[in-house]
Amino acid sequence: MAEFKLTREFVDHIKQKIEIKDEIRILEDIQDLHPADIADLYRELDLEEAKYLYLIADDETAADVITELDEDERRRLLSALPSEVIAKRYIDKMESDDAADVLGEMEEDRQQEVLSHMEDVKSAGDIADLLNYDEDTAGGLMGKELIKVKESWNVTICLRSMRRQGEELDEVYYVYVVDNDGILKGTLSLKRLLLSPTTRTVKDIYNENVIAVNANVPAEEVSAIMERYDLVALPVVDSIGRLLGRITIDDVVDVIREEAEKDYQLASGITDDVESSDNVWSHTKARMPWLFIGLMGGILSSMVVSQYEGLIGLNPQISFFMGLIAAMGGNTGMQSSAIIVQSLASGNSGLDSTSGKLLKELAVGVVNAAVLSSVIFGYNLIKGSDQALTYTVSIAMFSVILIASLFGTFIPLALKRINIDPAVATGPFVTTLNDILGMLIYFTIGTFCYSIFL
Amino acid sequence: MAEFKLTREFVDHIKQKIEIKDEIRILEDIQDLHPADIADLYRELDLEEAKYLYLIADDETAADVITELDEDERRRLLSALPSEVIAKRYIDKMESDDAADVLGEMEEDRQQEVLSHMEDVKSAGDIADLLNYDEDTAGGLMGKELIKVKESWNVTICLRSMRRQGEELDEVYYVYVVDNDGILKGTLSLKRLLLSPTTRTVKDIYNENVIAVNANVPAEEVSAIMERYDLVALPVVDSIGRLLGRITIDDVVDVIREEAEKDYQLASGITDDVESSDNVWSHTKARMPWLFIGLMGGILSSMVVSQYEGLIGLNPQISFFMGLIAAMGGNTGMQSSAIIVQSLASGNSGLDSTSGKLLKELAVGVVNAAVLSSVIFGYNLIKGSDQALTYTVSIAMFSVILIASLFGTFIPLALKRINIDPAVATGPFVTTLNDILGMLIYFTIGTFCYSIFL
Repeated sequence: MAEFKLTREFVDHIKQKIEIKDEIRILEDIQDLHPADIADLYRELDLEEAKYLYLIADDETAADVITELDEDERRRLLSALPSEVIAKRYIDKMESDDAADVLGEMEEDRQQEVLSHMEDVKSAGDIADLLNYDEDTAGGLMGKELIKVKESWNVTICLRSMRRQGEELDEVYYVYVVDNDGILKGTLSLKRLLLSPTTRTVKDIYNENVIAVNANVPAEEVSAIMERYDLVALPVVDSIGRLLGRITIDDVVDVIREEAEKDYQLASGITDDVESSDNVWSHTKARMPWLFIGLMGGILSSMVVSQYEGLIGLNPQISFFMGLIAAMGGNTGMQSSAIIVQSLASGNSGLDSTSGKLLKELAVGVVNAAVLSSVIFGYNLIKGSDQALTYTVSIAMFSVILIASLFGTFIPLALKRINIDPAVATGPFVTTLNDILGMLIYFTIGTFCYSIFL
Repeated sequence: MAEFKLTREFVDHIKQKIEIKDEIRILEDIQDLHPADIADLYRELDLEEAKYLYLIADDETAADVITELDEDERRRLLSALPSEVIAKRYIDKMESDDAADVLGEMEEDRQQEVLSHMEDVKSAGDIADLLNYDEDTAGGLMGKELIKVKESWNVTICLRSMRRQGEELDEVYYVYVVDNDGILKGTLSLKRLLLSPTTRTVKDIYNENVIAVNANVPAEEVSAIMERYDLVALPVVDSIGRLLGRITIDDVVDVIREEAEKDYQLASGITDDVESSDNVWSHTKARMPWLFIGLMGGILSSMVVSQYEGLIGLNPQISFFMGLIAAMGGNTGMQSSAIIVQSLASGNSGLDSTSGKLLKELAVGVVNAAVLSSVIFGYNLIKGSDQALTYTVSIAMFSVILIASLFGTFIPLALKRINIDPAVATGPFVTTLNDILGMLIYFTIGTFCYSIFL
């Protein structure tokens, strides 16, 4: 199967075939596509076209495609279908973690209705269990499908039991070893099983060094552990160590990307996960609040500057460098915050204490401040700006860079301590605060310098 | 094995044991740690202490820890060791992709020397092959360790051959099926193999729908494919389809994180991958260039503003809102760019054309611009600002938001087309351009309004 690239031609072709209800041709065209590719195709269809495609697709494919859709697209489609169809045609065919995710997006009444229509009572029970976990925890990420064997079994019994347990599973990466109470003891790799004589006991060949997490561990921590230890699957246990389920790397890759993107979004002033293909209203909703904060900050900053109307009227040159001072404060603060935010996120912040980090930032800040304020001092000298302005700009820049570095380091660390996402510190809110502070410093120093030199 | 958290106490304890050369105690303390945890410990030791720890550790552990270290730490340690020790104790024990990564960081002479000391000539050849690929391509990510079977074999022959091939592998997730010319035909899951009668032929049970990439496909594309199709391993082929190696998800998770972090770093004005634990000099080097761009931009912007010295001298109030206008332009532009950059990175940019995207941004821009400039108009009315200022600020804000939205959308798309990383558009360079443009618009409108109303 080659990689597939959705084209406008292909979409138009399918739309046309849907219009004339050419079922066979459509099924031929999509039969070799991966569900992720079919989901892309759905995004380009209107609701009626999408429904038609759903009705003609086989249940397995339809269930996979539903899993691949974005939340709002899935909701739009499922709300148009009766609970019984959803239960029997789709939910029954999904892995338990995907099924719980899809059901978790519905109203509680609807969830009950769908679950009551499921034919496989055991899976319905598994899904109901999974719905109890917060979606941002290990319990919310895990699936119930796994193969477990007892430590007392031999390889032959193991293989026989695995054949039975494995029938409904897509892929098997690890076999979990439990004792008679269901407590997780370790893992058995398929490779090890294939290489061992059939009379060996599981006890002798399994790997005891298994990393497991409790069901209430936050999703971020799950992704950090799997990334750090290069795991493809991670078992989840309850408080006394009984095996509850497993988390697979593909679900965690999504968490890792979302985490990293969230930081970037906060830094750029976007709430929620808007994509360029979303509508104008979603964009406005995600972006307006931050712009409003910027507006309020700008008004506050205008109030600060208005206190110095007299100074500016007499020496309009002082206003030339307002933008420079504000920008340098903003840039420096953002850099310092971003470095701390990334270290906190990757867990690579080392053993330095808060005061150690502030001291290092102070050192970096002094170097940057000294170099840059010397350059601007030289510039004003060569340009022949008056003495008061030359000193005001350089001293203010030195102070602003230093203060912004310290603020930029301190704020994310403080936010982290009170359990607020430290990435907020790189967003418009703190940049705006930096602007206001910058203007206050600039004009305070300006007032002082102009009173000395003039 | 529980999850491990490095503490200052543990580091001090190990340092103390190293000082008195208490080999046995140290080995007992670290024997249950994962190599990633031992690598953390190394980061806190000085070179002499680290070397001692290396000498007493077993080869397998030492090789794993070397793989986990950061590039500069690894280089520091390896430069202190003779080529023969590196070859026999470490490189021989690594997977081929890790070995090629480690060797790739050395001078070419040193590479040759290390390879010539390797005992396993076949692995040395594999590693030499891998060194030919660019590290940012599929070839650079792949490893040579894999299990392949011929489509004509039956299950019994398969299992026997797999036992032999699998001896040196850590984990096996897929078995690759090839024809007599070594051309990749498909995959065989271990589960399928376990569930099939021993007399079946591979031809009847393997999965033909295999996704593979060519060795020169860029790393970003590899990560996009593996993420999109939820793959744990991806086979790599040459131009005629012969199987060359495989890429595992753990290596790609690093690529995904690095990609996402790079965007964030570019947006915050940081080059390279500095971490809070790096030294002052690395920080200055990574941050100064961007601050310098900001400085140059600020000077340019001061030149623009200085053209309006007369206007400001007569009406100092106009300077109160300079910061607001600059900030709104910066925030809007950054939002628009960030949305485009993320859509491009995730491949979710849909089928909209460039002009379609610009039109949507124009719509979002008009809504935001209209709301925010009305608010500031109201504010200035209530505050009793003079008419000229009230109109200047509102009209300028409307224009700046609109223009910044369009610029913010257009620039990353244009950069992408000329093969420059579009994330550059969210960084200080474009923010600075936005500032300058904002001032030009503000004072042009100001000059006009003041000439009408006064």
